[in-house]
Amino acid sequence: MVIVMAPEAGQQDIDAIVELVGTAGGNAFVSRGVSRTIIGLVGDIEQFSALNLRGMPGVADVMRVSTPYKLVSRDNHPDRSTVRVGGVPIGPDTVTLIAGPCAVETPQQTLEAAEMAKAAGATLLRGGAYKPRTSPYAFQGLGEAGLRILADVREATGLPVVTEVVDAHDVDLVASYADMLQVGTRNAQNFALLQAVGGAGKPVMLKRGMNATIEEWLMAAEYIAQRGNLDIVLCERGIRTFETATRNTLDVSAVPVAQRLSHLPVIIDPSHSGGRRDLVLPLTRAAIAVGADGVIVDVHPHPEQALCDGPQALVNGDLRELARIMRQFPPLLGRTVATANPAASGDLLMSN
Amino acid sequence: MVIVMAPEAGQQDIDAIVELVGTAGGNAFVSRGVSRTIIGLVGDIEQFSALNLRGMPGVADVMRVSTPYKLVSRDNHPDRSTVRVGGVPIGPDTVTLIAGPCAVETPQQTLEAAEMAKAAGATLLRGGAYKPRTSPYAFQGLGEAGLRILADVREATGLPVVTEVVDAHDVDLVASYADMLQVGTRNAQNFALLQAVGGAGKPVMLKRGMNATIEEWLMAAEYIAQRGNLDIVLCERGIRTFETATRNTLDVSAVPVAQRLSHLPVIIDPSHSGGRRDLVLPLTRAAIAVGADGVIVDVHPHPEQALCDGPQALVNGDLRELARIMRQFPPLLGRTVATANPAASGDLLMSN
Amino acid sequence: MVIVMAPEAGQQDIDAIVELVGTAGGNAFVSRGVSRTIIGLVGDIEQFSALNLRGMPGVADVMRVSTPYKLVSRDNHPDRSTVRVGGVPIGPDTVTLIAGPCAVETPQQTLEAAEMAKAAGATLLRGGAYKPRTSPYAFQGLGEAGLRILADVREATGLPVVTEVVDAHDVDLVASYADMLQVGTRNAQNFALLQAVGGAGKPVMLKRGMNATIEEWLMAAEYIAQRGNLDIVLCERGIRTFETATRNTLDVSAVPVAQRLSHLPVIIDPSHSGGRRDLVLPLTRAAIAVGADGVIVDVHPHPEQALCDGPQALVNGDLRELARIMRQFPPLLGRTVATANPAASGDLLMSN
Amino acid sequence: MVIVMAPEAGQQDIDAIVELVGTAGGNAFVSRGVSRTIIGLVGDIEQFSALNLRGMPGVADVMRVSTPYKLVSRDNHPDRSTVRVGGVPIGPDTVTLIAGPCAVETPQQTLEAAEMAKAAGATLLRGGAYKPRTSPYAFQGLGEAGLRILADVREATGLPVVTEVVDAHDVDLVASYADMLQVGTRNAQNFALLQAVGGAGKPVMLKRGMNATIEEWLMAAEYIAQRGNLDIVLCERGIRTFETATRNTLDVSAVPVAQRLSHLPVIIDPSHSGGRRDLVLPLTRAAIAVGADGVIVDVHPHPEQALCDGPQALVNGDLRELARIMRQFPPLLGRTVATANPAASGDLLMSN
Repeated sequence: MVIVMAPEAGQQDIDAIVELVGTAGGNAFVSRGVSRTIIGLVGDIEQFSALNLRGMPGVADVMRVSTPYKLVSRDNHPDRSTVRVGGVPIGPDTVTLIAGPCAVETPQQTLEAAEMAKAAGATLLRGGAYKPRTSPYAFQGLGEAGLRILADVREATGLPVVTEVVDAHDVDLVASYADMLQVGTRNAQNFALLQAVGGAGKPVMLKRGMNATIEEWLMAAEYIAQRGNLDIVLCERGIRTFETATRNTLDVSAVPVAQRLSHLPVIIDPSHSGGRRDLVLPLTRAAIAVGADGVIVDVHPHPEQALCDGPQALVNGDLRELARIMRQFPPLLGRTVATANPAASGDLLMSN
Repeated sequence: MVIVMAPEAGQQDIDAIVELVGTAGGNAFVSRGVSRTIIGLVGDIEQFSALNLRGMPGVADVMRVSTPYKLVSRDNHPDRSTVRVGGVPIGPDTVTLIAGPCAVETPQQTLEAAEMAKAAGATLLRGGAYKPRTSPYAFQGLGEAGLRILADVREATGLPVVTEVVDAHDVDLVASYADMLQVGTRNAQNFALLQAVGGAGKPVMLKRGMNATIEEWLMAAEYIAQRGNLDIVLCERGIRTFETATRNTLDVSAVPVAQRLSHLPVIIDPSHSGGRRDLVLPLTRAAIAVGADGVIVDVHPHPEQALCDGPQALVNGDLRELARIMRQFPPLLGRTVATANPAASGDLLMSN
Repeated sequence: MVIVMAPEAGQQDIDAIVELVGTAGGNAFVSRGVSRTIIGLVGDIEQFSALNLRGMPGVADVMRVSTPYKLVSRDNHPDRSTVRVGGVPIGPDTVTLIAGPCAVETPQQTLEAAEMAKAAGATLLRGGAYKPRTSPYAFQGLGEAGLRILADVREATGLPVVTEVVDAHDVDLVASYADMLQVGTRNAQNFALLQAVGGAGKPVMLKRGMNATIEEWLMAAEYIAQRGNLDIVLCERGIRTFETATRNTLDVSAVPVAQRLSHLPVIIDPSHSGGRRDLVLPLTRAAIAVGADGVIVDVHPHPEQALCDGPQALVNGDLRELARIMRQFPPLLGRTVATANPAASGDLLMSN
Repeated sequence: MVIVMAPEAGQQDIDAIVELVGTAGGNAFVSRGVSRTIIGLVGDIEQFSALNLRGMPGVADVMRVSTPYKLVSRDNHPDRSTVRVGGVPIGPDTVTLIAGPCAVETPQQTLEAAEMAKAAGATLLRGGAYKPRTSPYAFQGLGEAGLRILADVREATGLPVVTEVVDAHDVDLVASYADMLQVGTRNAQNFALLQAVGGAGKPVMLKRGMNATIEEWLMAAEYIAQRGNLDIVLCERGIRTFETATRNTLDVSAVPVAQRLSHLPVIIDPSHSGGRRDLVLPLTRAAIAVGADGVIVDVHPHPEQALCDGPQALVNGDLRELARIMRQFPPLLGRTVATANPAASGDLLMSN
């Protein structure tokens, strides 16, 4: 931690800080410049945070120089992690395709979407039973009935299930059906929910808040990790900017940046960031090419009838191209397509 | 609702939409332009939303032309509302000052802060017992012990209490102590929480999400209103922008804009938007001048020891100026300072 | 300047930096922490900038701790400046109202607008003869013919003229007619233009770039100041954010922030930030209340016929309220309304 | 164009608009809804823009439904264009690599950088002789001496030259040396400069303004096209957002969006958007994968000595990977690497 003193700060201001830091068990190194004095602090940063140094007389700025997250940081865990979801890896050696309908509507629609997903190379099924919607008048999901449909479709297709939980008190229920819990962008700083999924014993996919910096996203992950759960996959899904041509602006740079700061896997959601079907495949290619550990996309057998986000769902005609992308791009990154049984991955590639 | 067809759309695309809209009980009016055809829809907008018109062949854009919120809209409720909190009005005729510590730390600190608040003209006490913090390692509030302190200080000072609730399942507990429930910026789209406070039978202060458009803010209020609670006060507290000199960018324009769209009162939080003590008084003046129905500010007897947001708290030396602002600015807007007993307001003004 | 070393940086990396800084005539102070080493640099910051320290092995971050602007900084010029335009002051003791049409269209329209401006308390006339327009198909201004109209109207009304220049090579021409040159938001980093107005011998109003941080805005002012012209007035006019209810988001906090960092006067343009007539008066009140040294507003005798930005122009019915604001708000800030003859200001106030 | 009337608008308001539109030679179609009336306009949009419809009584909103740009729009030019720079194509069939130093510093540095560029597969040389810099104290480029160095290096290497022009009155000089003129992000709305490069008879690379919407970017291109120059290449280089981990946020979605709206080629600058060397190669892969028609990157023989943007320049060790990307990714998109002689492209691919 570095303290920058104001030009008008006096010697007694500097002395007061040195003393305060000493009291807290730290050391302060003073560097006097022509116009400013800088004090470098060495010791326990959490201890210093409690000191409210910014409120001390003569202080112009306080700059943190180490990361505020610990458990998810790569500083103490240099190797990138692999998270397994129902046997399917998400990590540095593979590209994992997660696909399915935005919202679970009917058994038939969910099964058809799952089969579309599988045909395109997906090894995990996504689908929402609880939908956070901006409008209280919009479809909010089927709830537990939707979870049962997902479980049935998993049975039928063998695809493990990723599904969103929106309320801390539904976590146990959702976890009893799901293979992976998703925390959505609007809940990225719902700390009660983060703590609850941290204690649920299931892997978690944490979407980036549409207004969250990468650091805040990692802090949100730290909330989950603190409860003993390090099976966290980060998901970039677009941030809010001034551009209105797309629903949000997909921040592909966030993938290498987050992978450098954290050991957690990072995937991309190209469907929700753009909100437009014609962008999903180009953004999927960009996601794999930038180094994402996986991609999560919406597919729907009849998007014109979808109750939620139909305009962004891939349709049958797009699946062949998605399958081609999944075959041809990962090898250029030195990766294979993730499957529950790694041997199958080779088969899939050979069959082309 | 207006549908804009793509230049390449054919007659059968247009016919399909006209038929679909008819099936949903609406009427479609087709206007053919040189390069584009426009279809105006008349009927029930919720019905049309379910049609997924954007997914129809030939559709370039779908534009909503009426507001998606109903209960909080001024369209059907032209007079601006006054919300009463423990007898203190927040509405178009008054300026209400809400003040207190960011976080409740000790009985002594809370009482001193409340007395500071009262001296400056505040008639409602703010103070957090549950604090949503970006870092899991930061002080998270005293919980119910904090609520008890707030109740004691209300007893001692007569100031009704405004306090934040961060988890849907704490709503009843917090409501049993508080006069007004606050929903914070990070929970502005925590729909489970919005619905819970909507059913709690207490007035609600809804902070704008730091990434929420004004429309999304009003949609969040609609979630509360839908549960039968129209005692909602909107609170602008700064939005996230590229500027880093302030914590967030206070959007003062949002006050007249929201007051025009909604009948709900709108107040401003000048402490959290700037995050800097030197901005609180200038922004308080701007808030009243732009037409806010109230202001909520942090005060702290010893900000250098504050466990949360000390750098932005007003101190004793600032209170005289805050009191002056509260005396001199509201009358220029044709308003009085809000008090529990309206008669007292005149007295206060006469005493100057 | 402070250098933060990466956790993996070795002793030779640190030594290399200490040596490099020494070669550049500076001193480096090394503070070793548990996980990071910090190096504080003392000496000439411009010298260090050329060293490309960020490119050195082992460097994680380089943080500047002093301001990059000099001439416009308040560090070396603690008293706030007053800029005089044709005898009218813009500075800390006054509130200056600048008003007129967005674009000069005809002699009659300009004269009527100037008389409206004067009636509302304006002592400077604004009006554009060169208009930077997003579309090449939109009205681009009358050019020199417009400048002649402005000069005639100044003659008729006694109001000094503020007008925009959009091309470095028009600066001399525009300066030969104008009392103050305006640099618009789209040219806020047009460095050739900034340098040209810096050498023109006339006061300059520098609008903030809609995407400029406060620091970049001050750096743009430094470009002007470097050419020997310190008669610069900063004008906040809204920044680009995700909110679409207003054209841009007026950043009122920028006024006290910029006034603290720089000695230059800071005014607000409430017309262009909102782009809506109904926001102009509320934002004018907020501007004066937050401490702006002046306000610049669009007025138009017949806004429904305006060739540019008609929807945001004040009309005759608004002028009485604008005049009231100019009478009642400045005294609450300890200011008078700016006039060419300071004595008249007192008269104006006494007449109420 | 569609006009949405306010709920309180009366029949005479509607009649007034119908009459006004008729006077302007257009037709107005009125659709009455339950709460709102919509008027669709058919005719010449530029004509309607001059009417100031938004200022008419009873008007709530005016929505444009056709594009405001014509010459660069794909509406009237469905095939995507190829722009040739010194014989090198930039267009839909190829991926063009443009590389070189951010700033021209010395003949030796420029030649070495050009050779690095060529080794990596570049067929165009970038390099700045005029540098727009935020600080007036930073290196501003060598000017004409730099242009001469670029011409010499073109002679030595055969690489056509792309270089920036920052002042309208330097356009002829720069055009006499360069094969392609670059307009930078800070000049994206410097209309005098846009018009000047439009008349210079050389291809233009137009960087997106860091605060420009895609529509504004295309409007800027329209300014160039209006002067008779359609040899324009659009370059996405990152937009300004709240995220600070990267200098700007690369908006890869802008590539397919702009390619759909405009027939002009679209390339990506992965060096300036991120501002970090470690992001350049991942973002280059993403750029090609998303469908960009080319990539422009900074390379420098000794970035630790660079006078400008050294931290983002690729070094020798990165070139092998860049060359691999250029060999392996374009074929997956059905493209070849652009060369002056198309036959050579096949050779290059065969040699791998």
